[in-house]
Amino acid sequence: MTIASLNDFKEKLTDLPGANTDAAGAVAKRDATLTKPAGSLGRLEELAVWIAGWQRQHPPCFDTPQVTVFAGNHGVCRRGVSAFPPEVTTQMVANFEAGGAAINQLATQVGARFSVHPLDLDRPTADVTEAAALTENDYLTALNTGWMAVDDASDILVVGEMGIGNTTIAALLCAALFGGKGEDWAGPGTGVSPDGVSHKAVVINQALEKHASILADPVLVLQHLGGRELAAMAGAILAARHKNIPVVLDGFVTCAAAAALHKFNIAALDHCVAGHVSAEPGHVRLLQHLGKEPLLNLKMRLGEGSGAALALNILKAAVVTHTGMASFAEAGVSESE
Amino acid sequence: MTIASLNDFKEKLTDLPGANTDAAGAVAKRDATLTKPAGSLGRLEELAVWIAGWQRQHPPCFDTPQVTVFAGNHGVCRRGVSAFPPEVTTQMVANFEAGGAAINQLATQVGARFSVHPLDLDRPTADVTEAAALTENDYLTALNTGWMAVDDASDILVVGEMGIGNTTIAALLCAALFGGKGEDWAGPGTGVSPDGVSHKAVVINQALEKHASILADPVLVLQHLGGRELAAMAGAILAARHKNIPVVLDGFVTCAAAAALHKFNIAALDHCVAGHVSAEPGHVRLLQHLGKEPLLNLKMRLGEGSGAALALNILKAAVVTHTGMASFAEAGVSESE
Repeated sequence: MTIASLNDFKEKLTDLPGANTDAAGAVAKRDATLTKPAGSLGRLEELAVWIAGWQRQHPPCFDTPQVTVFAGNHGVCRRGVSAFPPEVTTQMVANFEAGGAAINQLATQVGARFSVHPLDLDRPTADVTEAAALTENDYLTALNTGWMAVDDASDILVVGEMGIGNTTIAALLCAALFGGKGEDWAGPGTGVSPDGVSHKAVVINQALEKHASILADPVLVLQHLGGRELAAMAGAILAARHKNIPVVLDGFVTCAAAAALHKFNIAALDHCVAGHVSAEPGHVRLLQHLGKEPLLNLKMRLGEGSGAALALNILKAAVVTHTGMASFAEAGVSESE
Repeated sequence: MTIASLNDFKEKLTDLPGANTDAAGAVAKRDATLTKPAGSLGRLEELAVWIAGWQRQHPPCFDTPQVTVFAGNHGVCRRGVSAFPPEVTTQMVANFEAGGAAINQLATQVGARFSVHPLDLDRPTADVTEAAALTENDYLTALNTGWMAVDDASDILVVGEMGIGNTTIAALLCAALFGGKGEDWAGPGTGVSPDGVSHKAVVINQALEKHASILADPVLVLQHLGGRELAAMAGAILAARHKNIPVVLDGFVTCAAAAALHKFNIAALDHCVAGHVSAEPGHVRLLQHLGKEPLLNLKMRLGEGSGAALALNILKAAVVTHTGMASFAEAGVSESE
């Protein structure tokens, strides 16, 4: 199954499966019997319920986690918005393929299958200050690359990204979807100077003005103001919903792509948990708009799915404590008075 | 080597090895070459430097993590301070030995060797509202049980605890070491009611009054107001310092035991990182007194070393990214402009 058209995309975003309340309830019921004071594992207990509900099964599983990274290039780089040259996107894809990047180590640590999907790196998007980033055809191709990248056999999914210039694009999407100007959402990204951040804000404001006519439609916002790797992440997140796979969201760029889905349908990210809050200043505000409380806050700002992959260890802990602990009866432990 | 006397304990707490700045510097130097923007792994980068410094080696290692849990019983339980009966301490030790507790699953997840040390469970400490919790001899035995439990071959250590009644003891230690009354430090522990918390505060205030004459000496505070598992944790944390093993601190009770060391020598916990902040309300204040920023905040409040064991995944990530990532030169990636 793929996304056949923008209308089909909107239909798949409208007709969303919900969580399985029986599976979630079975976790809560077993949790109450486990050898610990009620509630004492905090968010691990909530996560076990949540994972089972979205996997639609009890017990919840953490056997086949998947981390997949999408890479794209951005025409807006000609405006000088990044500290790194755009050829780094291609170079980093080679690094991902060779196993040398941070995300490779983090995926291996937690036992996740890793893949990387470069998207037409020799054809950057259009400069969003001048034209729509993607044609409808290129947009659908990117959405479907994301959709197809999700393995039906995965039990948890992390989507990540690589794309020089894409924190400018993410800030632009946030301003388009939630309001505010460039200066409200632009940040240092990979490490531009305060002057560079101000320049990013100017570029974002130019793009907002150029595309004023489509800002009310989140599906068009992602096409006109986004990028291939952002569309692919959105496609993958939506595919995961239809395949009963909970998703761990990464940082500012991933969440900006996800935000387009949320803005179209406020329930679209109910199968997603925020893996972390990054050091990119817009991310904390974006998570507030999405209503997500991050699992980790370690001042990371790398992208690649790295914060979410690290958070997979928390989800795994939720599953292994729920499935592995003895009950009060099994262990012969007295319950509270 | 063991702790021969209280004077010897104070000497070992005074004459502390420092971090190796060469090893720490070697991490910082290599980190700057790795394929990521500088600083983009946030606290993972700081942890890699810190681990290498306290392990006194570069590269830092995460090959032989150790989790060890100490269990003790408390005479103060006769005052009705816990939601669970005191026999649960012994029952939970059996559960730890059988592999059925939360900490077993979390230690296994991160590849840590696990051990549990019950300390004279049939001889609870004295009721601290009436007498010193431990005789000097029992105190030294507990300190040395902790010291000896630390494997010289471990490269990272988590100490945890089990002891019905010990959040009352932890709150008492905090009040004794840092000031304030019972009501400033008492919390629900395993889940007592608001009335139960008020009762804990009354009991703590009675103990503070009873032991007013020794409150200025942190080493005596741990003996008179502590407990066997708390003394053992303090002994283990000090042993780790002398054995070049960084420590991940767990929740309120572990940190209260550690606080006695800190109060004696403000540098005594420099080889310790706070694994998490628990839901027990005194813990966040205690961490502020210790000057520690927790790695995790997941509303856990179980003890057993569980929050710290979960945080071991973060330390492991710091090590595997530092040691496994390619450099810009190795990967042929352009650096920032």
